[in-house]
Amino acid sequence: MALSPVIKNKISASFSAQSMMKTISSEIVKIETGQVTLAAPILPECRQQQGFGHAALTFALGDTAAGFAALTVMPEDMEVLTAEIKINLLAPAAGDRLRAEGRVIKPGRRLVVVQADVYAEQDGSDKHIAVLTGTMVPVPTNT
Amino acid sequence: MALSPVIKNKISASFSAQSMMKTISSEIVKIETGQVTLAAPILPECRQQQGFGHAALTFALGDTAAGFAALTVMPEDMEVLTAEIKINLLAPAAGDRLRAEGRVIKPGRRLVVVQADVYAEQDGSDKHIAVLTGTMVPVPTNT
Amino acid sequence: MALSPVIKNKISASFSAQSMMKTISSEIVKIETGQVTLAAPILPECRQQQGFGHAALTFALGDTAAGFAALTVMPEDMEVLTAEIKINLLAPAAGDRLRAEGRVIKPGRRLVVVQADVYAEQDGSDKHIAVLTGTMVPVPTNT
Amino acid sequence: MALSPVIKNKISASFSAQSMMKTISSEIVKIETGQVTLAAPILPECRQQQGFGHAALTFALGDTAAGFAALTVMPEDMEVLTAEIKINLLAPAAGDRLRAEGRVIKPGRRLVVVQADVYAEQDGSDKHIAVLTGTMVPVPTNT
Repeated sequence: MALSPVIKNKISASFSAQSMMKTISSEIVKIETGQVTLAAPILPECRQQQGFGHAALTFALGDTAAGFAALTVMPEDMEVLTAEIKINLLAPAAGDRLRAEGRVIKPGRRLVVVQADVYAEQDGSDKHIAVLTGTMVPVPTNT
Repeated sequence: MALSPVIKNKISASFSAQSMMKTISSEIVKIETGQVTLAAPILPECRQQQGFGHAALTFALGDTAAGFAALTVMPEDMEVLTAEIKINLLAPAAGDRLRAEGRVIKPGRRLVVVQADVYAEQDGSDKHIAVLTGTMVPVPTNT
Repeated sequence: MALSPVIKNKISASFSAQSMMKTISSEIVKIETGQVTLAAPILPECRQQQGFGHAALTFALGDTAAGFAALTVMPEDMEVLTAEIKINLLAPAAGDRLRAEGRVIKPGRRLVVVQADVYAEQDGSDKHIAVLTGTMVPVPTNT
Repeated sequence: MALSPVIKNKISASFSAQSMMKTISSEIVKIETGQVTLAAPILPECRQQQGFGHAALTFALGDTAAGFAALTVMPEDMEVLTAEIKINLLAPAAGDRLRAEGRVIKPGRRLVVVQADVYAEQDGSDKHIAVLTGTMVPVPTNT
């Protein structure tokens, strides 16, 4: 299903309005119906005590990619908030870049169930470092 | 139970080594056996699209406070990594400062189950904005 | 706050209508505003491979106690469904009886965030065996 | 990768030893390396208040299928316990039969991260009713 330019613009605007996305130097990689991919470097400012990316960095990317995926299946005058999300960390966030692939598992008028996989890219290969499952709640866009 | 200075020092060192904690301007408020409290302002750089604190900010504080709480019940030569953690968001992160109270629910040699409550402080009162439950895994400290 | 008899009756009726509660020989121990306690024996029919109570038994009690707690803060013509719930298992379900204490963390018109602690009772003492955190969704009662 | 008969036998034995599996009339549908499928009818004894399958029934199948999937990647003298698992419920458990497909996301010596999808089968078609993500802990088999 083709994604309306209005939805793409809404996601871009939401991304730009989230200062946290700029703080972690994130970028939008792909927007498709039900799927959004974000990426970010593992900045020196976003590390945990061993020098790997902090769990909050991985979370930031995964949660936001999942939320944007939900946005692609919402009416144009709605946005979403995270009600809950769980992250299972599979491996250290080490490498050149993190990539989070968010997707919709179950759309809904009241709740949207989403997942995201986060990968660490290094030397052209991917390492699966986290999986997230969460619930997004549609709310009217503040205008 | 009195907390050994070695453990307090270990937590302070871990906190200082986590650049993410500096990026969000976090500080340690309290360290007791089984309980650690962190706080941070809601920086302009850590917002979501509506201008509230980003879920990743609330997560960063809650996850780290919970991990430090686990550290207080570990042998001195061990540190912990987050295996999994779930956050339920209860209200927007709005106010003067966020405060995360982490605590140990169940210590263990292989797994430590932890919780954290996050509050937004405004005009002297607290609003409960998130609850986290997670599992920390002890690993030998890299020396 | 006194709990209306209508709500108490609604919970009793819901409990009776849930055949799973009878299958595990559960009973209602206490109903208060925002808090409901259930209990059940560890039946021979509800075991896992080591002879302890199955995780699904602990889940059944904790999830249902948490849902009933949510019912106590709902309008009388509403019931609740579990949207999501996570269980952390702390110790084997061994002893004379399991007791699940459900409570409301955050009431709401659209979502109710709940928790439950499950204890195994043995020889008059309690062992904390599980903690659950979840989200209940209010829906109109089918009449 | 071919699955050793010893592992298949271990799973069958564990299944038979779990009385809860008999109580819900579950059966093993498929065992492959990293993937196990279970199924069960929606018994009249396992319902919630609206007449659908109880969340604990869906949980029992999903959790057990995920645990068995973990068993397929363990040494033969180990079994697994659920440390934590979260279930997101997507639709009512209505239909002829529930089917839970468990799989390993990340094997490990200390932790195995697993997922399961649960489907309700009706008139030859599948409805996706739940997704679970959890952590299994390997423990030596009691002999």
